[in-house]
Amino acid sequence: MENSKAILKVPGTMEIRPAEMPVLRDEDVLIKVEYVGICGSDVHGFESGPFIPPKDPNQEIGLGHECAGTVVGIGSKVKKFQIGDKVNIEPGVPCGKCRFCLEGKYNICPDVDFMATQPNYKGALTKYLSHPESFTYKLPDNMDTMEGALVEPAAVGIHAALLAGVTPGKKIVILGAGCIGLMTLQACKTMGAAEIVVVDVLKKRLEMAKKLGAMEVIDSSEADTVTECKRILGELGADIVFETAGVQVTAKLTPQIVMRGGKIMIVGTIPGETPIDFLKINREVSIQTVFRYANCYPTTIEAISSGKFDVKSMVTNIYGYEEVQKAFEESINNKKDIIKGVIKIAD
Amino acid sequence: MENSKAILKVPGTMEIRPAEMPVLRDEDVLIKVEYVGICGSDVHGFESGPFIPPKDPNQEIGLGHECAGTVVGIGSKVKKFQIGDKVNIEPGVPCGKCRFCLEGKYNICPDVDFMATQPNYKGALTKYLSHPESFTYKLPDNMDTMEGALVEPAAVGIHAALLAGVTPGKKIVILGAGCIGLMTLQACKTMGAAEIVVVDVLKKRLEMAKKLGAMEVIDSSEADTVTECKRILGELGADIVFETAGVQVTAKLTPQIVMRGGKIMIVGTIPGETPIDFLKINREVSIQTVFRYANCYPTTIEAISSGKFDVKSMVTNIYGYEEVQKAFEESINNKKDIIKGVIKIAD
Amino acid sequence: MENSKAILKVPGTMEIRPAEMPVLRDEDVLIKVEYVGICGSDVHGFESGPFIPPKDPNQEIGLGHECAGTVVGIGSKVKKFQIGDKVNIEPGVPCGKCRFCLEGKYNICPDVDFMATQPNYKGALTKYLSHPESFTYKLPDNMDTMEGALVEPAAVGIHAALLAGVTPGKKIVILGAGCIGLMTLQACKTMGAAEIVVVDVLKKRLEMAKKLGAMEVIDSSEADTVTECKRILGELGADIVFETAGVQVTAKLTPQIVMRGGKIMIVGTIPGETPIDFLKINREVSIQTVFRYANCYPTTIEAISSGKFDVKSMVTNIYGYEEVQKAFEESINNKKDIIKGVIKIAD
Amino acid sequence: MENSKAILKVPGTMEIRPAEMPVLRDEDVLIKVEYVGICGSDVHGFESGPFIPPKDPNQEIGLGHECAGTVVGIGSKVKKFQIGDKVNIEPGVPCGKCRFCLEGKYNICPDVDFMATQPNYKGALTKYLSHPESFTYKLPDNMDTMEGALVEPAAVGIHAALLAGVTPGKKIVILGAGCIGLMTLQACKTMGAAEIVVVDVLKKRLEMAKKLGAMEVIDSSEADTVTECKRILGELGADIVFETAGVQVTAKLTPQIVMRGGKIMIVGTIPGETPIDFLKINREVSIQTVFRYANCYPTTIEAISSGKFDVKSMVTNIYGYEEVQKAFEESINNKKDIIKGVIKIAD
Repeated sequence: MENSKAILKVPGTMEIRPAEMPVLRDEDVLIKVEYVGICGSDVHGFESGPFIPPKDPNQEIGLGHECAGTVVGIGSKVKKFQIGDKVNIEPGVPCGKCRFCLEGKYNICPDVDFMATQPNYKGALTKYLSHPESFTYKLPDNMDTMEGALVEPAAVGIHAALLAGVTPGKKIVILGAGCIGLMTLQACKTMGAAEIVVVDVLKKRLEMAKKLGAMEVIDSSEADTVTECKRILGELGADIVFETAGVQVTAKLTPQIVMRGGKIMIVGTIPGETPIDFLKINREVSIQTVFRYANCYPTTIEAISSGKFDVKSMVTNIYGYEEVQKAFEESINNKKDIIKGVIKIAD
Repeated sequence: MENSKAILKVPGTMEIRPAEMPVLRDEDVLIKVEYVGICGSDVHGFESGPFIPPKDPNQEIGLGHECAGTVVGIGSKVKKFQIGDKVNIEPGVPCGKCRFCLEGKYNICPDVDFMATQPNYKGALTKYLSHPESFTYKLPDNMDTMEGALVEPAAVGIHAALLAGVTPGKKIVILGAGCIGLMTLQACKTMGAAEIVVVDVLKKRLEMAKKLGAMEVIDSSEADTVTECKRILGELGADIVFETAGVQVTAKLTPQIVMRGGKIMIVGTIPGETPIDFLKINREVSIQTVFRYANCYPTTIEAISSGKFDVKSMVTNIYGYEEVQKAFEESINNKKDIIKGVIKIAD
Repeated sequence: MENSKAILKVPGTMEIRPAEMPVLRDEDVLIKVEYVGICGSDVHGFESGPFIPPKDPNQEIGLGHECAGTVVGIGSKVKKFQIGDKVNIEPGVPCGKCRFCLEGKYNICPDVDFMATQPNYKGALTKYLSHPESFTYKLPDNMDTMEGALVEPAAVGIHAALLAGVTPGKKIVILGAGCIGLMTLQACKTMGAAEIVVVDVLKKRLEMAKKLGAMEVIDSSEADTVTECKRILGELGADIVFETAGVQVTAKLTPQIVMRGGKIMIVGTIPGETPIDFLKINREVSIQTVFRYANCYPTTIEAISSGKFDVKSMVTNIYGYEEVQKAFEESINNKKDIIKGVIKIAD
Repeated sequence: MENSKAILKVPGTMEIRPAEMPVLRDEDVLIKVEYVGICGSDVHGFESGPFIPPKDPNQEIGLGHECAGTVVGIGSKVKKFQIGDKVNIEPGVPCGKCRFCLEGKYNICPDVDFMATQPNYKGALTKYLSHPESFTYKLPDNMDTMEGALVEPAAVGIHAALLAGVTPGKKIVILGAGCIGLMTLQACKTMGAAEIVVVDVLKKRLEMAKKLGAMEVIDSSEADTVTECKRILGELGADIVFETAGVQVTAKLTPQIVMRGGKIMIVGTIPGETPIDFLKINREVSIQTVFRYANCYPTTIEAISSGKFDVKSMVTNIYGYEEVQKAFEESINNKKDIIKGVIKIAD
């Protein structure tokens, strides 16, 4: 087994380098990577370097954290896996000891070791990686590793929907129909919501939203979002508004769309200061930021395996491992109408 | 408009009598009843008289509380409805003033006026009835009044599943595949659960459970329920166990099926004292009784209207209004393999 | 019994006018008013007219909504009260029929009839008022009607603390030590919190906060609030931050004080657009607006009666009914270092 | 530093034996034990051997799990502690990897290593013990190690009260005024509850309950518990009933005492099958078993340190290390009216 990894040489340039085989500790699983999904944060890292730059200027920067593959080695204490198992992984390994970990909110552990970011900047774009058994999951027979790789972004949607308390009967608006917006849509559908309105400015995304089950879609380049939401959902507005676009222009709309007593879920990463008029939401509205996920992988895997949550239809572009540079270049600014791109590392 | 109503003359005998048109108060809607579902509690009432006997021995006893029809009159203060609207009703009208009502738990209001029981024993098996606007609901265009009548038992399932916190990823066992068991199954499915095991002793019911989406069914007349549940769901057991059969023999199994930290939901009405071994469930299991529903009608109507929750397939027997005696007689002891019977009062 | 009421003649001028005795409906209680607390919203109304101006320019504007007194008449259906009972009232009577009322969130009922605001602008500054039995509460023997009048603002604190999930062990910052800030402080203390930091710019208020049990106080006119909060509570910050000052300058600090996974409770009424940097709170922080209270009166009365919640010490100024003009004038801009002023209508 | 430990030689006989110093791993703290509280489970173990007998008949059985002392050594990776710190410990160290641990419910981890029980039967009655840093807590300056040792049973009360959702205004009945009953009483008091009724058959315990703040006490050897509870709390009954006595005779009363919509918390260990009449609690009552505690130590330490929760007054008997045999003998069957006994291992 010879290893290699795709490294961010400088912003805008990836390079595949030979690499040592990863260390396999007693509680680790050694995985031959097969598919890696391309996340918006990876594209951002490719263009501009990591959100949180490394302290050491010589730090090698890997990219990719949505991945699945096949078990090719197991540590001496591993019990759940066997060689040959198809698996995927949670890319963040929390400390397990802080208050947040002990309370079950390990997604906000301050010392989490998350792929492609601090402290290790280890990316999933590599032939082999080792990972702790506790954060590795066996895929059901009816799921392949491309779907397995997409469990990560799907889990973001599932976590957001669970945190929001989505149930049948809730009126929902999703601002943004990029990958996370569509994952959130599917999570809401899976949990039984039917009245879901999706808003975006790109026709291809809105078509995908319709295909994946949105009740109605709004092209906010053509229609007034607030007016349309109220026309569709009624004057009171939405029980839950998910901001997934990560921009102030949509975040500022949320107080006008949400119902009294409702919830605004901030799933996107919104830079700068967003002006919020609290008088517009003074009837017990909550604004909740959402960060990654915790305890969601089994749920998400089941949702996909049971056929309710369709990640495969979202994949519009598949690249080979050698095309990693091209994959990132085409992902910038939606040049190619990409909904979801994946990189195939191996069969 | 001439009215009539079906009255329990003596246990075992129904009689259709002429009746005055109901009083229409300012906030009431007058409804021409079209369909009435037959509930197990109605059958019990038919056989043995009401669970809670009336104080006045001359009290006229009506039966039926699952109903839908058409608006034929509206009180002076009614705003939401028009003549001709297809509607269904919540059969329990709470006091609106007690602590439980003010806290949103109006299903446990001690002074609720619920159809076919105390204090008024007013049944839905009648040509016309009046009902407060606040507890009347407009049916969507794609739902007919037979489906409308079945919203009531469906709401029992929806309420039980919401109270239990059903989400995708939960492992669920439903004990009993009668009407309420199957409604609970569909509620769980609607909320995204996939691993649902249904247990009963009647083949026809288990077939219906499979048809409606149970992952597996257990015929407890042939196999050991506890052993089978653990074989299917794993040694830890189920996150949630719904007891819907209303008998001690199944209630006694729940501690052996539920997972540590899990929930036992008592949906059925279990007579007598059920022996519970708390040492078997001492790892923070909860046992929760479930009573009717509150704030569930809009959700349930949406679930049915959106196609996720299929009440129509559950109807195995449709009777005419004049066949009311036969309808009840055939409902006793599952003589006719009835899953759900309804009485058609009018077109 | 001759009635009179204090009316806002024009902004800045109150006038006591003769008035008819209130209508006593079957479910109403007639109350001889004894004490009325002066709320910041009353003072705002006195200075500038109501927040929400009446549609009818001739609408008579009453002020005051914190009140208690003695039952002097009872409607024909009233069961809980007798002539002579000491009582206080919830000033908002919700519709009882909308979705929010039925769900137990009657504080956000769109059709609530709340004293001194729309639709009726009926104030508590009157000799007699009638009120529905369901929103009237008997005071325990060890509480007088001055304390009874202060249950209303105390309930705001109790509701905010319950909504925030205050328990022992939570680290809490309260921004603002006006009446609502101090009520929130006491609510948090009552619920077992010990690490409570209170921030204000007025020494007299901070002294009161210390006296009422704040662990530490910060004079933000002299020290940097964020730095001080972290020095006292640790680098992670506070579990819960209550904004009670109702100004942007404090609201803008909340993201810097709150802990990851923590809660910002917006209790104050904050005008304009507050810039919020979501990147500072992107680890699953929630911002929740708080509006009045629901189902809190019995709890609040008990908290005061049991000696845990001390409203009496907060009263710094007592005015006679005839001094209503002076009472409001002195309440403007904290001219007189008033913490809490009350108006005594009758013995 | 020479070590020794008190071992259960045979049921009924303790023996202090020389022992090796404990292994100090990188993340461990070495503690010189000062105080160990005697728990009912220790007394049971002394009399009859452990609840769960060891598989190896030669397994050495230690007793004691409520303890505090002074740090005398620290592992190489320990950051939070220094030599000389006064500390106490959580006696259960969970696996950190199972579903329950990851969800924050580490108290129900199936693989927890809990003192004086399986798998290691390591007791706290020893001169020195090592413990992981993450489950060790620094005591505030105003708490001594006797109080520190009692944090463990106090945490049981705090956890039960938090799980039950105790707040001001709740009506509470506590069945049993032994150590855990009184700890639960104090936890409820700390969280603001005022209407707390405590039931027992021993006068000395009921006196202690009054002293610690019970509103009323019932001697169930003299009065009918159900009748008295309703006389005191009203016909509806209690919001929350804590069963802490661990016997069927009290558990069987809970359905008659609890309010519709209320909660029965099973804190005691109840052997055998308890007959439960679900018809008596069919208005959405929940019965919840409570097991140890999770994430409660910081809260409990604060509650004691702030003066709200008084563990010291509960200590009626202090024994020397050499008196360990006598301590257990006197603890059997309440021979000596012991409320809480502790063993002083060292200064």
